[in-house]
Amino acid sequence: MISQAAVARLRDMLGTKNVLSEPEDLLTLGYDSTPELSGQPDVAVYPPDLDGILTAIEIARDEGLPIVPRGSGTGLSGGSVPVSGGMVLCLNRMNRILEIDEANLTATVEPGVITLDLFNAVAEKGLFYPPDPGSQKISTLGGNVMENAGGLRGLKYGVTRDYVMALQCVLPDGSVVNTGGKSVKDVAGYAFKDLLVGSEGTLGIISEITVSLIPPPQTRKTLLAYFDTMPKAGEAVARIIAAKIIPSTLEIMDQATIGCVEEFAGIGLPLDMAALLLIEVDGHPAVVEEEAAAVHKVLQQVGAAEIKLAGNADEAASLAAARRTALSALARKSPTTLLEDATVPRSMLAETFTEIERLTDKYRLTVGTFGHAGDGNIHPTVLCDERDRDQMQRAHAFYDELYEKVLAWGGTVSGEHGIGVAKRDYLARQIGPAGIAVMRRIKDSFDPRRMLNPGKVIAEK
Amino acid sequence: MISQAAVARLRDMLGTKNVLSEPEDLLTLGYDSTPELSGQPDVAVYPPDLDGILTAIEIARDEGLPIVPRGSGTGLSGGSVPVSGGMVLCLNRMNRILEIDEANLTATVEPGVITLDLFNAVAEKGLFYPPDPGSQKISTLGGNVMENAGGLRGLKYGVTRDYVMALQCVLPDGSVVNTGGKSVKDVAGYAFKDLLVGSEGTLGIISEITVSLIPPPQTRKTLLAYFDTMPKAGEAVARIIAAKIIPSTLEIMDQATIGCVEEFAGIGLPLDMAALLLIEVDGHPAVVEEEAAAVHKVLQQVGAAEIKLAGNADEAASLAAARRTALSALARKSPTTLLEDATVPRSMLAETFTEIERLTDKYRLTVGTFGHAGDGNIHPTVLCDERDRDQMQRAHAFYDELYEKVLAWGGTVSGEHGIGVAKRDYLARQIGPAGIAVMRRIKDSFDPRRMLNPGKVIAEK
Repeated sequence: MISQAAVARLRDMLGTKNVLSEPEDLLTLGYDSTPELSGQPDVAVYPPDLDGILTAIEIARDEGLPIVPRGSGTGLSGGSVPVSGGMVLCLNRMNRILEIDEANLTATVEPGVITLDLFNAVAEKGLFYPPDPGSQKISTLGGNVMENAGGLRGLKYGVTRDYVMALQCVLPDGSVVNTGGKSVKDVAGYAFKDLLVGSEGTLGIISEITVSLIPPPQTRKTLLAYFDTMPKAGEAVARIIAAKIIPSTLEIMDQATIGCVEEFAGIGLPLDMAALLLIEVDGHPAVVEEEAAAVHKVLQQVGAAEIKLAGNADEAASLAAARRTALSALARKSPTTLLEDATVPRSMLAETFTEIERLTDKYRLTVGTFGHAGDGNIHPTVLCDERDRDQMQRAHAFYDELYEKVLAWGGTVSGEHGIGVAKRDYLARQIGPAGIAVMRRIKDSFDPRRMLNPGKVIAEK
Repeated sequence: MISQAAVARLRDMLGTKNVLSEPEDLLTLGYDSTPELSGQPDVAVYPPDLDGILTAIEIARDEGLPIVPRGSGTGLSGGSVPVSGGMVLCLNRMNRILEIDEANLTATVEPGVITLDLFNAVAEKGLFYPPDPGSQKISTLGGNVMENAGGLRGLKYGVTRDYVMALQCVLPDGSVVNTGGKSVKDVAGYAFKDLLVGSEGTLGIISEITVSLIPPPQTRKTLLAYFDTMPKAGEAVARIIAAKIIPSTLEIMDQATIGCVEEFAGIGLPLDMAALLLIEVDGHPAVVEEEAAAVHKVLQQVGAAEIKLAGNADEAASLAAARRTALSALARKSPTTLLEDATVPRSMLAETFTEIERLTDKYRLTVGTFGHAGDGNIHPTVLCDERDRDQMQRAHAFYDELYEKVLAWGGTVSGEHGIGVAKRDYLARQIGPAGIAVMRRIKDSFDPRRMLNPGKVIAEK
């Protein structure tokens, strides 16, 4: 519980409009996009700047309140759910693009800038910010950095980590640390910047971000390939990579997902195919031409049922946009959508699809599978109903058994969504007691009082 | 001091040939490639495998001995110099390439594998490991990872960090931690792998490394450009990047370096030019053709005195090889070679060269400057004599003043050589008390007794 005096102090220091404490105002801030998880914040604070963050941390410390930082609440592992109550620190009003440095190919932003806004702003200057998480229209850069968000272009262009050059971070003790800079190489001291990326708001609050930009690809080509089985599509992915082609996008959807996306977006996808691969190659026109031809050849060899080349940029864009609707399209079909992000070495992709099919039958579930196949990063999504306890138990048993295989194959329990609150048990299984001990050492060294995101495993005592 | 009993125990456990304790055997292990620094090890241990590392750590702990891990001793910041004595843990006999996984494009190696040996082994399979530090013929992968080594191809292909997928690490308490894997995306828990990269042997001992591999470029073209001033060459670099061309290599040498390299390698470099840029573009033949033409145009616009295209691959290779001799060539000219690796945002390159020239005159020194210009990563090298105290004072004053500017321009005191023992004071200037506090928190959480590399600033109390 926060005292009325503390709320008054927050209002006084940060302005009334930047502090919410009425239960009805706080209701939606008890959730993010993760099912089965909610919390009850005591107060929500919208700092307008670095000083506001410092004030909020100081008052939370005085009150003994947990702090849960939040961007747009698009997280899928419960990272911004205030499971122990406390202060939700909403960074989405710190949303200025501070600088686009064309000489050094960098952009410096506040943490609340929307991912797509940055993409568009740098595109106007002829530059390219590649990371494009599915939620890019509403996700914030701060959230992307804290979760090390991936995206459809991850295969060729990497993930958020690969573009973070500098961070300004406020530690729980109120100290402000700047790490990294505009130099493209920097080995001065421990890689604190790299430790912060993906730390899910458990080590410090990010107040400023500098990312690197690259020249945009000159052109691109989009192919669609349909398959009569998912493992065959998985094999195609492995064969494309083994042929030393690195497409910018290599996405998969299974039949259930194709059906939902078609119903939602109506772009003419066939409903009778077991699997679809969406493949984009980009770069210099000559390279794109050759790579598209090489991909086409591999698809034929593997036995694709149909291969289509997008006729023009608009058609390609609408295909990519349709792929981005996959989660929303599936979510419409059932009250609850359990989404995971198992990731395996690419050579194990076909086996993974076979296993998902086996487990779907075994546990009598409806599962839609889609994801970043080129990265081995798959989102098997169980369509279910939270109120049906038996079904939910089967759904969790499905994931338990799937992750057992994924880990045996050298995979990971999270490719891009993070551990948050939802995956605590899975993390422990993956990294073992020695790994968990390392996580705790790191957490304890920065946040000994466990103020930040105390519900998370990496924070758990 | 190590006890005779402990030496006997080490010999018994690891074999006589893997333990050195005679002063004459230990002499060369008191140095690495950093001038003005040496130490006196008590014992040197060459573990043949993970168990050997565990044994060595246990005995060092029992004896209260500091441990200094060492690869080939090519470090340039004193990272493997046993300044407080103790045990030098030589990992260069753990030199097996354990696996090249062509399906997942990874290689797994022991830490003592020589960088160039890995490059050649994967090249035989049609794959490419890009990081190529100047010392690649003798440097070890373990050392590369611990220093986050760069190289000539860093501009386009990044540094060692960008290729590390998984590490096995022994912590000072003897626990063995595996971090990362063959999945190309992994956000399960804190990025411990990324924290270890560049940690200079102060957090744990690396016992196994998995790196990612990429398809090699199909072709390359090498250009040489000469300039009548260094700042003009710096401007050319900035303009090439601003034109959105990312060459694979963009190296610079000043007149002093050109002279030394020519004397050493005899490949016909002109001795009357103030600066040389060595530029390599690689990739698809069409891209290489266009980029080479675009670079040529920029070089002309900036006013290069002469532009040459390497006639064939042999000539290109001999130019790159000549550039790699720069440090050795300079080192022949004077008893002591003080080498720094100042790094600035690329837009400040021309100013940096102007400042180096000003300071060279001010402090009456002989300075050869070369480096990875495309990365803003420069090696101003003072040719001096350790016995001349006045000259050495002037040399250190030169760097002090240079780094003041570099830091004011948003640069870093180390782009690729690390902090080690030599740059402790500079690091503190760069990251300030809050930054140093962060480094100490990290160090203390893994090595509270300060067993590993206790002479380093990130270890210093």
